[in-house]
Amino acid sequence: MTRINPGGTIGIMGGGQLGRMLALAAAQLGYKCHIYCPEENSPAFQVADQKTVAAYENEVALTEFAQSVDVATYEFENVPSQTAAVVAANTLLRPGAKALAVSQDRLVEKQFLNEAGVETAPYEAFHTAEDLQAAFKKIGRPSVAKTRRFGYDGKGQKLIKTQKDLEVVLDVTNNTPAILEGFVPFDREISVIVARSASGDVAAFPVGENVHTNHILDTTDVPATVSDRVEAKAKVMATKVANALDYVGVVGVEMFVIDSTSQIIVNEIAPRVHNSGHWTMDGAVTSQFEQHIRAICDLPLGNTGALGTVRMKNLLGEDILDLDGYFADPTASVHHYGKHDPRPGRKMGHVNWVKRQD
Amino acid sequence: MTRINPGGTIGIMGGGQLGRMLALAAAQLGYKCHIYCPEENSPAFQVADQKTVAAYENEVALTEFAQSVDVATYEFENVPSQTAAVVAANTLLRPGAKALAVSQDRLVEKQFLNEAGVETAPYEAFHTAEDLQAAFKKIGRPSVAKTRRFGYDGKGQKLIKTQKDLEVVLDVTNNTPAILEGFVPFDREISVIVARSASGDVAAFPVGENVHTNHILDTTDVPATVSDRVEAKAKVMATKVANALDYVGVVGVEMFVIDSTSQIIVNEIAPRVHNSGHWTMDGAVTSQFEQHIRAICDLPLGNTGALGTVRMKNLLGEDILDLDGYFADPTASVHHYGKHDPRPGRKMGHVNWVKRQD
Repeated sequence: MTRINPGGTIGIMGGGQLGRMLALAAAQLGYKCHIYCPEENSPAFQVADQKTVAAYENEVALTEFAQSVDVATYEFENVPSQTAAVVAANTLLRPGAKALAVSQDRLVEKQFLNEAGVETAPYEAFHTAEDLQAAFKKIGRPSVAKTRRFGYDGKGQKLIKTQKDLEVVLDVTNNTPAILEGFVPFDREISVIVARSASGDVAAFPVGENVHTNHILDTTDVPATVSDRVEAKAKVMATKVANALDYVGVVGVEMFVIDSTSQIIVNEIAPRVHNSGHWTMDGAVTSQFEQHIRAICDLPLGNTGALGTVRMKNLLGEDILDLDGYFADPTASVHHYGKHDPRPGRKMGHVNWVKRQD
Repeated sequence: MTRINPGGTIGIMGGGQLGRMLALAAAQLGYKCHIYCPEENSPAFQVADQKTVAAYENEVALTEFAQSVDVATYEFENVPSQTAAVVAANTLLRPGAKALAVSQDRLVEKQFLNEAGVETAPYEAFHTAEDLQAAFKKIGRPSVAKTRRFGYDGKGQKLIKTQKDLEVVLDVTNNTPAILEGFVPFDREISVIVARSASGDVAAFPVGENVHTNHILDTTDVPATVSDRVEAKAKVMATKVANALDYVGVVGVEMFVIDSTSQIIVNEIAPRVHNSGHWTMDGAVTSQFEQHIRAICDLPLGNTGALGTVRMKNLLGEDILDLDGYFADPTASVHHYGKHDPRPGRKMGHVNWVKRQD
């Protein structure tokens, strides 16, 4: 329950846009940030008080980093478990190792979610060709094969519609442990950004509705076009997840909704601030970044109310080179991540539009 | 008219809270900041990409600083003219030297304002005891003696009500050039935060009403309790000032209002983001800090609309040690400047309350 007061130092593992926006929010509240990242030109370094450029396997550097901060957190769920252990041995780590363990492995994640009383797609683990055939018999088609670890933005996934698709699955999953998920005929993707403080207070933001293009988030709209009942149920599910993880910080919970039955299943959880919560920066009283800082420092959680109808749009690759229309739009707020190389598909920034009720 | 695109570097002279909040706003838009400040532990250093710790008289350091940035600006009006000249010789300086020259000298400022068609209190310059007697004869009492240079937060000022008060004036003004101002029986103090871009576009924020305590700003309320006519007139006056200065950036224009006559006189101008504009951080679509960055980089100016009824309150000295009530208040946004020594009267942070129309 340790409280970190403004003036303290927050350590952030990962120096991308999420670390950067966390550092900016921390600064508003009077905290200093120390960013740990292996890449020299990390965007978060530009706004941090201290930086360490070192590998996540460098235990000397990790120990020094951890000892220099009052609390440590991370911007990505693939922090190696040994890295987390070294940091946790030397400072408060929030969220803790359990959230990482659960979210890094799709099988563990699904088991955890079901135990927490939250519905998921049906799934079966597989590794060998024999396992896969057995799994396919149970799950049926269409189904989706996904590696258990290190998948993101659609990588390490294969949609299976025919027996023939099955044949390439082991290539796609790279012969590593994987799961076969039943394909859910969902009508929309939503996500709930929920915060749980070190004291156990929980606050969910209004539900966002997400549209992905090429497996990368394109837009989030708030409010989602779901019934009040689905909105409420989604928040309850996200709260269950946060409580079951004994979570501290902001967690993003991605869900699929089937309109006709109001069924909601959880797709995956991200133990960190989440792209689908970027709308909160201009569209909510408190941003998800400030909320994460409040949660891990054990301040009271902030007001999660929305300020109107909000749309967030990601700026990918060369989208970032033509911002004039957004700058001239009186309803748009532009966020640029300070990255220099606009590679195709790279998240370079985002725009929020807020239509206020008045 | 040079445009600085996101990804560029902005130099800021001064490392206090204004420089810090400018750097945070610049980061959102994708700019890097280089802070120049003589004090080792400047709050703005905590959020900047580069820093230079050097005196304002160090021309080698100033030149290197200027050459490392695409545009330079400042957070305080007492930048020495030679410092400004060195920087301007090596990069774009926005706002330019004229704004500094005018705002650093109360006599020059008053003359400039009157020439720009803006009313001020009556005034007379003085230096010697003889001048002072002559000025007093013209201006009458009550009047206020003020040093021409380096006055702030009431320092270097003396209210004169009696002939006896006159006798100590030369001590208070430290025998330096000064002016005697007629005392204006104003009903309220207001300020207009106005931005003018490098391309000459001008946008004023809604007028704020200020309350000072012990000569230090305590609160700003928006909207000000003035008529629509006064609101409009105040914005026109601030716009005149910005245009007459050929200004680039955000300027704060402090005014006195006499309700019975709707008379407005300009008290002083601050060629920078201004404490009375801090309400915009949560209470306007665009903050004054983002607006200053947009103006000096020649982006389109942002939307200055207010998001509701707003109050800003400064947190001075040990006010900063007890933030829990503010953190727990769902209508309050806390801004902590990251300063460690809460000396009495020192500006340590501020709180904004926004009451939205819904």
